[in-house]
Amino acid sequence: MDDLFQAHAALLEKAVAASRERGFWAAFPENPKAYPEGAASAGKAAFAALKGQPFDLGGEGEGARVGAEVSPFGPALGITYAARSVDALVANAERAGVAWAQASVEQRVGVALEILARLNAESFLIAEAVEHTTGQAGPMAFQAGGPHAQDRGLEAVAYAYAEMARVPGAVRWEKPMGRSSIRLDKDFHVVPRGIGLVIGCATFPTWNSYPALFADLVTGNAVIVKPHPAAILPLALTVKIGRAVLAGQGFDPDVLQLAPDTVEAPLAKDLATHPAIGLVDFTGSSAFGGWLRETLRDKLVFTEEAGVNTIVIASTGAFAAMCANIAFSLSLYSGQMCTAPQTIFVPAAGIATDEGHKSFDEVASGIGAAIDTLLSDPARAAAVLGAIQNPATLTRIAEARGLGRIVRDSAALQVEGARTATPLLLAVEAQDEAAWLEERFGPIAFVVAVRDARDGIARATRAARQKGAITAALYSTDEAEIATAIPAYAKAGVALSVNLTGGIYVNQSAAFSDYHVSGANPAGNACMTDAAFVASRFRVVCVRRPAAA
Amino acid sequence: MDDLFQAHAALLEKAVAASRERGFWAAFPENPKAYPEGAASAGKAAFAALKGQPFDLGGEGEGARVGAEVSPFGPALGITYAARSVDALVANAERAGVAWAQASVEQRVGVALEILARLNAESFLIAEAVEHTTGQAGPMAFQAGGPHAQDRGLEAVAYAYAEMARVPGAVRWEKPMGRSSIRLDKDFHVVPRGIGLVIGCATFPTWNSYPALFADLVTGNAVIVKPHPAAILPLALTVKIGRAVLAGQGFDPDVLQLAPDTVEAPLAKDLATHPAIGLVDFTGSSAFGGWLRETLRDKLVFTEEAGVNTIVIASTGAFAAMCANIAFSLSLYSGQMCTAPQTIFVPAAGIATDEGHKSFDEVASGIGAAIDTLLSDPARAAAVLGAIQNPATLTRIAEARGLGRIVRDSAALQVEGARTATPLLLAVEAQDEAAWLEERFGPIAFVVAVRDARDGIARATRAARQKGAITAALYSTDEAEIATAIPAYAKAGVALSVNLTGGIYVNQSAAFSDYHVSGANPAGNACMTDAAFVASRFRVVCVRRPAAA
Repeated sequence: MDDLFQAHAALLEKAVAASRERGFWAAFPENPKAYPEGAASAGKAAFAALKGQPFDLGGEGEGARVGAEVSPFGPALGITYAARSVDALVANAERAGVAWAQASVEQRVGVALEILARLNAESFLIAEAVEHTTGQAGPMAFQAGGPHAQDRGLEAVAYAYAEMARVPGAVRWEKPMGRSSIRLDKDFHVVPRGIGLVIGCATFPTWNSYPALFADLVTGNAVIVKPHPAAILPLALTVKIGRAVLAGQGFDPDVLQLAPDTVEAPLAKDLATHPAIGLVDFTGSSAFGGWLRETLRDKLVFTEEAGVNTIVIASTGAFAAMCANIAFSLSLYSGQMCTAPQTIFVPAAGIATDEGHKSFDEVASGIGAAIDTLLSDPARAAAVLGAIQNPATLTRIAEARGLGRIVRDSAALQVEGARTATPLLLAVEAQDEAAWLEERFGPIAFVVAVRDARDGIARATRAARQKGAITAALYSTDEAEIATAIPAYAKAGVALSVNLTGGIYVNQSAAFSDYHVSGANPAGNACMTDAAFVASRFRVVCVRRPAAA
Repeated sequence: MDDLFQAHAALLEKAVAASRERGFWAAFPENPKAYPEGAASAGKAAFAALKGQPFDLGGEGEGARVGAEVSPFGPALGITYAARSVDALVANAERAGVAWAQASVEQRVGVALEILARLNAESFLIAEAVEHTTGQAGPMAFQAGGPHAQDRGLEAVAYAYAEMARVPGAVRWEKPMGRSSIRLDKDFHVVPRGIGLVIGCATFPTWNSYPALFADLVTGNAVIVKPHPAAILPLALTVKIGRAVLAGQGFDPDVLQLAPDTVEAPLAKDLATHPAIGLVDFTGSSAFGGWLRETLRDKLVFTEEAGVNTIVIASTGAFAAMCANIAFSLSLYSGQMCTAPQTIFVPAAGIATDEGHKSFDEVASGIGAAIDTLLSDPARAAAVLGAIQNPATLTRIAEARGLGRIVRDSAALQVEGARTATPLLLAVEAQDEAAWLEERFGPIAFVVAVRDARDGIARATRAARQKGAITAALYSTDEAEIATAIPAYAKAGVALSVNLTGGIYVNQSAAFSDYHVSGANPAGNACMTDAAFVASRFRVVCVRRPAAA
């Protein structure tokens, strides 16, 4: 067994420090040029070789296979995965989990860090897999699906390691009793909660799964990864790499298993309710997230669900830059991000700007025009928008057209075979809550006329409390207004970005710095980047005995 | 506003360090002689003055009052408390909680530490209150109800402070982008989960409530304390002291409220299910704990419930000392401890000891005789046993007599007016699970004949997994047997004490060292002394904006 912990100790130390300082830090470079020459083309070739083939996770045998992934850019992937029954998955995890639970914290952390390093080396292949399942454009699929996801996995390892490192291995407890003392030797054992189930989503299969996957692993829990049927490959590649590292270190590879399923015969409910499953992490709809929260008893359940992310425009000293910034946020990956804004509150009487007074309509059309400008170049449009992951999103766009006055209509890009749609921007009144107060996943946004900025902030924070929100933005030139707004957003449990312009967007969440999902409103019951996300994934059992004299 | 944080900073630092090192440490002296001369008699006098009077929490007005506490040592206390409706309690907490949530971490921690210091100064009064509600004998009521409980409160403050201190207040995030960079200023806000509800128990009203009470407070949650109707006074005194400190620092005292109720009109369910309650901590029966876990959604629920604590006697090199140690564990506070052993497994063929082979019957009668010896002196018997908190326990003892062969019968002490009972010790067979595999709270214990030590360990660990257990003990002279047993106990999530003799007992759980309740079996869903106990009681919300150039 290699000393993987020692091999990666310097990286871990930096990650632990970064997660405390929360300034900018990244372990895995997001710039493709930082990777070896030829890595990109090798990734493309490896992806091409996987297409149309049974995926080999190792030791599958001849059983049934599932898999019907179709790229949002056109072609079916034609890849199948060995099907596994719930009982077989659980039995394998229980068998493999025994030695994994008894491995040292350092052994498990070493394995996790080695998996992350190997995932990083395969970032271009994983990027292809993410691109052709989620519809993310290539550059985003590389960054979000590769290094950014790996950073998030590393962040979870750092948190979990920090928590476990606080548990001493062995101590001498000596209580003075007058002239003598009572002396006990104590050993503390970190024990897992049970098998971890990680249920992936179709839009960010790696980025949203890695925190839970790695947090479960290092805290001693065997893990079953249940990918979304539309985005199996990115997690199949992840699990394959993980199993190889585990096996190489003498562990049963079934510590980490893939549970592929189909829309017709889903496994998630049967897995989640199995008594041997102790932890469930889910990213996806409020309907299923709510079912998990209502149904599961005495299990740890971490969810990231839906919400209504808002922007309040009270005033701005940079109207054009604000419109450009919002336009990018609405367009990036066609609004298919849990962090994308949807509902933009603007005072009905208009706002003060560096370009003079702007009416409500001028603000709305300013954002619409900024979207047009951003997407005017077809290549840039394709690189920003990517494709639409789920055909249902196109239906949602069509239905949304009737919800308000169309400021900017949605349209398909001219990209052969790809399912695409530019943002639909609608103007509505504050009382049209049926329109703007429901999450409408995809490139659908509302500009909502409100009485004034205060009314907008009240509605934005109430929406967060009632419907959930992961992000919120506020534009204001009035520092007193900003100062008053901050406690309201804090109480609503939503991360707030103020006056963003330039190359940073409300929908970007930085590993090691931002607290992604607060866990304090219905958009999710947990923050995915804090101690609470990891501290309950293990328990500590003490063994004590009188010390030898 | 005083700088209470600075005033108590040295103590906090030591507490944080102790909770990491987990060797012996105590902040508040357990020896009554360490307190000022006259403190004990002043405590007695203060208690006497409270009896037969309406308890003054401050500002109660003329409304309805409740309270029917009767000392297990005889007299009714005759103290009444102002009744409060659920709606009034919640409205008060919501109003008072606004400023409390916005106070700094240091302000809140300073208030908590000052409350603990003042509680310590009132330890003798609180000891009287604990003695005459729980039935604990005086010395134990002082230690467990006073300094030990305060240490546990301090421990929770230390954990919570350590977790919150990891959240930086404000940082500059600067991401290099080629020749320029993106710079954001970020502020991180610790926000509470909602109102905390702490439901106390009748046997350890302070020791079992302080961890949650102080963890909730310092993480910014207003707290409603709902004491057991039989043990209101210790928590009323606590809340009164807390409110005085809060008011003295300019906070609304309703940050900390008392919710006294009666057996006939209980408040716990209505409080727990109120939407404004975000956290519920409960110590008590599995029936109500299970109801809370089944019923409450999207709330944090921490429970300490029931269990079957076991001892396995495989062999011993100190038979007499072992019997004496077990006898004390069975007798202390008449077995009314969540950590008291109940079920003792002994091989049917007997065991090897330093006194030669001992048959099953000899082991059982050895323990019985040790109880007799321990309790032979009436004064010592009274000081060890205390009184029986709940009359139902006497009924339980009477019914238990029919469950097996009586090795040692229970009897009352000759203490005028007090409700007392010495331990009942029964011998049963392994298959009599209806007898030994149910928690029988109070001085009831079983010696169970098992095939061999391995069978005993298997039954002990299975009992912990199925029924829950907070403690387990093992006596063995075979190091290989001990080494094999440890992973089984760890998997069962139960703290294990090996070969205890002398002045340390399986039912003693040391603050800052032992992990009280593992949270890994049905005896409780949470450990009460780790980061997981505090880390979810608050959330972090980030506010970010472009940094000034």
